[in-house]
Amino acid sequence: MPEVTPTNAYPSAQARAYQALYGTGPAGLSPTQRALAGLIVASVVTTVVGTEDTVVQRLPVVFDFLEVFFATVFVTEYLVRLWVVGVNPLYRGLRGRMRYIVTPLALLDLLAIAPFALGVFGAESMVLRVARLLRLVVLAKFVRFSKAIRLLAGVVHARRFELGFTALVGLAVVLLASTLLYVIEGELQPDAFGSIPRAMWWAVATLTTVGYGDVYPHTALGRVFGSITAFAGVGLIAMPTGILAAALSDALTKAREGVRVDHTDTDAD
Amino acid sequence: MPEVTPTNAYPSAQARAYQALYGTGPAGLSPTQRALAGLIVASVVTTVVGTEDTVVQRLPVVFDFLEVFFATVFVTEYLVRLWVVGVNPLYRGLRGRMRYIVTPLALLDLLAIAPFALGVFGAESMVLRVARLLRLVVLAKFVRFSKAIRLLAGVVHARRFELGFTALVGLAVVLLASTLLYVIEGELQPDAFGSIPRAMWWAVATLTTVGYGDVYPHTALGRVFGSITAFAGVGLIAMPTGILAAALSDALTKAREGVRVDHTDTDAD
Amino acid sequence: MPEVTPTNAYPSAQARAYQALYGTGPAGLSPTQRALAGLIVASVVTTVVGTEDTVVQRLPVVFDFLEVFFATVFVTEYLVRLWVVGVNPLYRGLRGRMRYIVTPLALLDLLAIAPFALGVFGAESMVLRVARLLRLVVLAKFVRFSKAIRLLAGVVHARRFELGFTALVGLAVVLLASTLLYVIEGELQPDAFGSIPRAMWWAVATLTTVGYGDVYPHTALGRVFGSITAFAGVGLIAMPTGILAAALSDALTKAREGVRVDHTDTDAD
Amino acid sequence: MPEVTPTNAYPSAQARAYQALYGTGPAGLSPTQRALAGLIVASVVTTVVGTEDTVVQRLPVVFDFLEVFFATVFVTEYLVRLWVVGVNPLYRGLRGRMRYIVTPLALLDLLAIAPFALGVFGAESMVLRVARLLRLVVLAKFVRFSKAIRLLAGVVHARRFELGFTALVGLAVVLLASTLLYVIEGELQPDAFGSIPRAMWWAVATLTTVGYGDVYPHTALGRVFGSITAFAGVGLIAMPTGILAAALSDALTKAREGVRVDHTDTDAD
Repeated sequence: MPEVTPTNAYPSAQARAYQALYGTGPAGLSPTQRALAGLIVASVVTTVVGTEDTVVQRLPVVFDFLEVFFATVFVTEYLVRLWVVGVNPLYRGLRGRMRYIVTPLALLDLLAIAPFALGVFGAESMVLRVARLLRLVVLAKFVRFSKAIRLLAGVVHARRFELGFTALVGLAVVLLASTLLYVIEGELQPDAFGSIPRAMWWAVATLTTVGYGDVYPHTALGRVFGSITAFAGVGLIAMPTGILAAALSDALTKAREGVRVDHTDTDAD
Repeated sequence: MPEVTPTNAYPSAQARAYQALYGTGPAGLSPTQRALAGLIVASVVTTVVGTEDTVVQRLPVVFDFLEVFFATVFVTEYLVRLWVVGVNPLYRGLRGRMRYIVTPLALLDLLAIAPFALGVFGAESMVLRVARLLRLVVLAKFVRFSKAIRLLAGVVHARRFELGFTALVGLAVVLLASTLLYVIEGELQPDAFGSIPRAMWWAVATLTTVGYGDVYPHTALGRVFGSITAFAGVGLIAMPTGILAAALSDALTKAREGVRVDHTDTDAD
Repeated sequence: MPEVTPTNAYPSAQARAYQALYGTGPAGLSPTQRALAGLIVASVVTTVVGTEDTVVQRLPVVFDFLEVFFATVFVTEYLVRLWVVGVNPLYRGLRGRMRYIVTPLALLDLLAIAPFALGVFGAESMVLRVARLLRLVVLAKFVRFSKAIRLLAGVVHARRFELGFTALVGLAVVLLASTLLYVIEGELQPDAFGSIPRAMWWAVATLTTVGYGDVYPHTALGRVFGSITAFAGVGLIAMPTGILAAALSDALTKAREGVRVDHTDTDAD
Repeated sequence: MPEVTPTNAYPSAQARAYQALYGTGPAGLSPTQRALAGLIVASVVTTVVGTEDTVVQRLPVVFDFLEVFFATVFVTEYLVRLWVVGVNPLYRGLRGRMRYIVTPLALLDLLAIAPFALGVFGAESMVLRVARLLRLVVLAKFVRFSKAIRLLAGVVHARRFELGFTALVGLAVVLLASTLLYVIEGELQPDAFGSIPRAMWWAVATLTTVGYGDVYPHTALGRVFGSITAFAGVGLIAMPTGILAAALSDALTKAREGVRVDHTDTDAD
């Protein structure tokens, strides 16, 4: 979508709204865009806290209100976007609006509104509760505002070979460690090590140094191999660290340098 | 505050005390400043150990004495500072002393004395115990002696974009992991995963590889996503490592090189 | 083994099969090689899941079929390889085939077939179950496809001095920490700290920051040394991180640069 | 101690023994020195395993024999060193031997023999068991063989400012986190958070990401600050990683480059 230059000195309300919602400039996000970002965060926090019954039951009116409020905000945003996008020659008129509705970002906006139709918070069936979590899709609207997701995707893509290799080594060590512990402690602790998939739960917790402590080897031999796995975990942590850190540091440096020259791209193309 | 040069070969007691308390020189901290730093550390240790009733009840006299001792030391320090600061032309006379009292460092000194008025250690009400912890504010007096805090603040400020980005990725992974586990194990383990905020406690412990083991997934599917979260944690640790380490290393190298040229700044300006 | 150029425009079935199984080209692995790699992974997954009785008992027919299927595939692969290798002048004729059979990669293929003779999955004696795990040796067939194992071995070899030094420091800290805790808590917790080898289980879990929490010091002194061990663990993780990350990053960069020039080596030489 | 050149083509037994025990050459350690290093490791393993009563009681004769064996070996080594050191002009004659006995390395050899006088392994009083652990001092004899200890000491010394700064930040975060949890959960869980020193045990386990799980916050507010502490731990691990890794990598590179030029120094100077 090309940058739209207002044709006269006193732009119309539609043109000003277009600039506020879609425009990018040297100052970064417009006040309207910042407000929308804040509303998205507030909506997510409401959805997250809304799963905790002890809170919802104490403040039912507040959650009912927030429910309606965020639904109204995002529906209004969708409709205003639909109206003002006509400023752009690409999406002018009814047929232009049709073209706009099926763009990925417009579909995402629609998808983010849909779950609000599922009604208020509360302790109903699990299916309904899960369905309402689709409201968290609203977070995906951040794609519009942020280059960070593309940046992270770029880093992971640039180092996919290194990271894939590290992941394969990690999986191989998990397989080896869980096979060994299955053989050594499988009969002694059938619940924890009675099969390789069960032993993998222990192997992952040990190799990543999480160490829940719900399962651990009881025999001397199992502890010897458990110790080796724990030390291997230290090595496993070591590998992606330098890879990711270096790549991320490079990408962020480039991104900061690019901020001053890179103002021509808009978000809806 | 400009460096004050003593005008005659035999400086007065006030001028010598000023130099001992405020002066900076090629040798670093003066013996008086080192002694004060040691007293601050001793005072903090006393406050910390003083919260342990089993120790205080065995040595009540010692803690009563240390109480009075540190109060006396820091009150005396405050009064001496107030007297000797008159050497500096900026804070000469009564009006100068008034100006000095409202400088941030002088207010901090006053704030650090105040909680000593709350009396001796012991097992009284929690409110009083907490109030006495304000004595730990005495640690903030180290701002006067140390450039390290400014250095760390500088590093965090220089890399705020990278660190903020890492924190956002971490929060997003915490949100995703806790939402998944809430959906998968919410009904099976309502205390641990019965809402997204509850599941977040597990997600944080797993993603940071702390792994207390108080809560963990019980189902096969929950363990698959738990394992992915644990591996994501290894990646999450990887990101800030290189960023912080490189920035800190640079800043410390600069700080050491700057030691020999940078003797003109004093601490009260 | 030198690259074998087909001598006429319409190569025989044997020559085409040779190219499909042993050939290397600019496009990487041939479709046949990719399919075999997929079958190896599928076979390993089957063996791993086959140790979980609750799954096998629900789908006994599926596992019986997969059993026969993978045995057939790998036996067929072995026989086809034996036939087509005659295209290579080195292994032509019956005597050439004998020479081929004793090459490391051909022996590995044979070794990977053998455990399939041990019959179907199920809950028989542990000895039989363990023997069947030798099917995982099939993973070693990946040596044929992948340079990654040689790459990792090269990295570890190049930094063996640094990594060995780190391991020695780690062992010394484990010895020191477990000796201290044995002395401090040996009488209080005989099961956990009643001997140095027992205390080592705690020391390894703490130093690698796994922290199962099955054993931990109960006394104040034990906790002081436990805390020091935990902080030493942070330092221990720090050491191999940079060493491995830098070496791995270098080796992978070289490996990627080498992809375009390095197409002449085959895997059976 | 200067390198001693044998004065004739057929050196005496004393001169050859001197070379075998003290000599350094292009090939590194002499076979005698390697054998002694192996015996030191074997002696340490015996002492460590000897603290485990279940093993000692099964093989009492073996441990009694090893006891006498290692005592004999190290006493013999000491006496032979005392005899052959006379080859060196510095330690010739009875007065030279007296001078040698008080050198640090000779005193260390004597110290390593002494605990063997404490008799056989077994389940006697804790005091005697601990005294026998002084046999582990035999490990210090490695100072004679290894430059690695000096290397590590050099690295830690070169980066003492950075590491000290990291340690201070870590201590400050431990103090802050334990004070907060003491205030929040001190009344609810007096055993775990009833005083700041008690809460420090939790803070250290969380900040180093060990996470035993013996104590953890139960309230929502405590968990919020516990989560922040866990994330701070990720940052704390990040800081020393790059510092130590870079310094160690540099030092080891220098050490390897120095191997070919650095053959003139002996170990007893």
